[in-house]
Amino acid sequence: MKLYDDPRSGNGYKARLLLAHLSRSYQYVPIDILRGESRTKEFLQKNLNARIPVLQLDDGSYLPESNAILYFLAQGTSYWPTDRFEQAQVMQWLFFEQYSHEPNIATPRFWLAIKGLEKTPFNLELLAQKQKAGNQALAVMDQYLQSRRFFVGERYSIADIALYAYTHEAHEGGFDLSQYPAVVAWLKRVSEQPGHITINQWHAA
Amino acid sequence: MKLYDDPRSGNGYKARLLLAHLSRSYQYVPIDILRGESRTKEFLQKNLNARIPVLQLDDGSYLPESNAILYFLAQGTSYWPTDRFEQAQVMQWLFFEQYSHEPNIATPRFWLAIKGLEKTPFNLELLAQKQKAGNQALAVMDQYLQSRRFFVGERYSIADIALYAYTHEAHEGGFDLSQYPAVVAWLKRVSEQPGHITINQWHAA
Repeated sequence: MKLYDDPRSGNGYKARLLLAHLSRSYQYVPIDILRGESRTKEFLQKNLNARIPVLQLDDGSYLPESNAILYFLAQGTSYWPTDRFEQAQVMQWLFFEQYSHEPNIATPRFWLAIKGLEKTPFNLELLAQKQKAGNQALAVMDQYLQSRRFFVGERYSIADIALYAYTHEAHEGGFDLSQYPAVVAWLKRVSEQPGHITINQWHAA
Repeated sequence: MKLYDDPRSGNGYKARLLLAHLSRSYQYVPIDILRGESRTKEFLQKNLNARIPVLQLDDGSYLPESNAILYFLAQGTSYWPTDRFEQAQVMQWLFFEQYSHEPNIATPRFWLAIKGLEKTPFNLELLAQKQKAGNQALAVMDQYLQSRRFFVGERYSIADIALYAYTHEAHEGGFDLSQYPAVVAWLKRVSEQPGHITINQWHAA
């Protein structure tokens, strides 16, 4: 397998982290999104939507979307529950992550820590709006985790992997995680899972 | 089963449309999001994230997130493929829908056709930004559909249901679908599926 990914990306980190847990070997292909490398004619043949990560299977087929990659790789492993309703709950949190969490927590980090914020009034107002919505998402997680060790079925799953990726870097987007003690305790539990790697690492072929 | 939903919601329509295809009976519980009915203490016990739709199962458990509801209800039916890679491709398009499509196509419709746009410079600039991103999502769909009848495996699936919900109402958000002829042809194919209902309908108990 090959993983096309920008090493700074939390979405790519989700795939790298699960691959490390599973001890699956793969070829890592870095793509610099700031230099337009996800928008070349060649890359658009892998993903028309011009985004990383993309997983290339051994038969040559391509799978974009970080959470679809998690879903695909987790089938038949302990990172995907066997109960049908718990499977749907994993899905619930994966969609929460892509709709309510990632756009509001990853984007401020991208602007403040990676790309740099163009200081127009519009962007500053949009940053404030995203930080407000990001804090709402963190508050939902904190309340939910007050009585739980992990998001689904009291076991570490791809729901935790997906939500960990940008939550543990949220301070880089101007978020104060000390307001969310149940989230902080959960982050620690995730980081103690066997085979854990940091966002700057990958376990490759 | 009970479906908590705002009748104007495309996200709720996804669940209603699949339930109609499956001839599943359920109780329909309208929730007026503009009147704050998804933010009451009672509703937050169904979904901490304060959003509709929410599916309540016969055992009393709640499942939020429209695409997780589609995933759950489609298991074991013809709307969910049997091939493992095709399943992952359905996921790919469900996440595309929630990340690249819905926020940019549903929100302009919500502002222009339902809630009304507050005419601040910020909101007008944000509307323009969303319409630009929404057109990019429609262009991705149009290019992909030029050689395909449906999104995955040449068969109608929950990927089509999820993407149909807001695409067929995109004109209400200021989008000109005539620029996307492959999308227009696909919309017609979806609307001709047996058991199809419109966004204003529900098939209930």
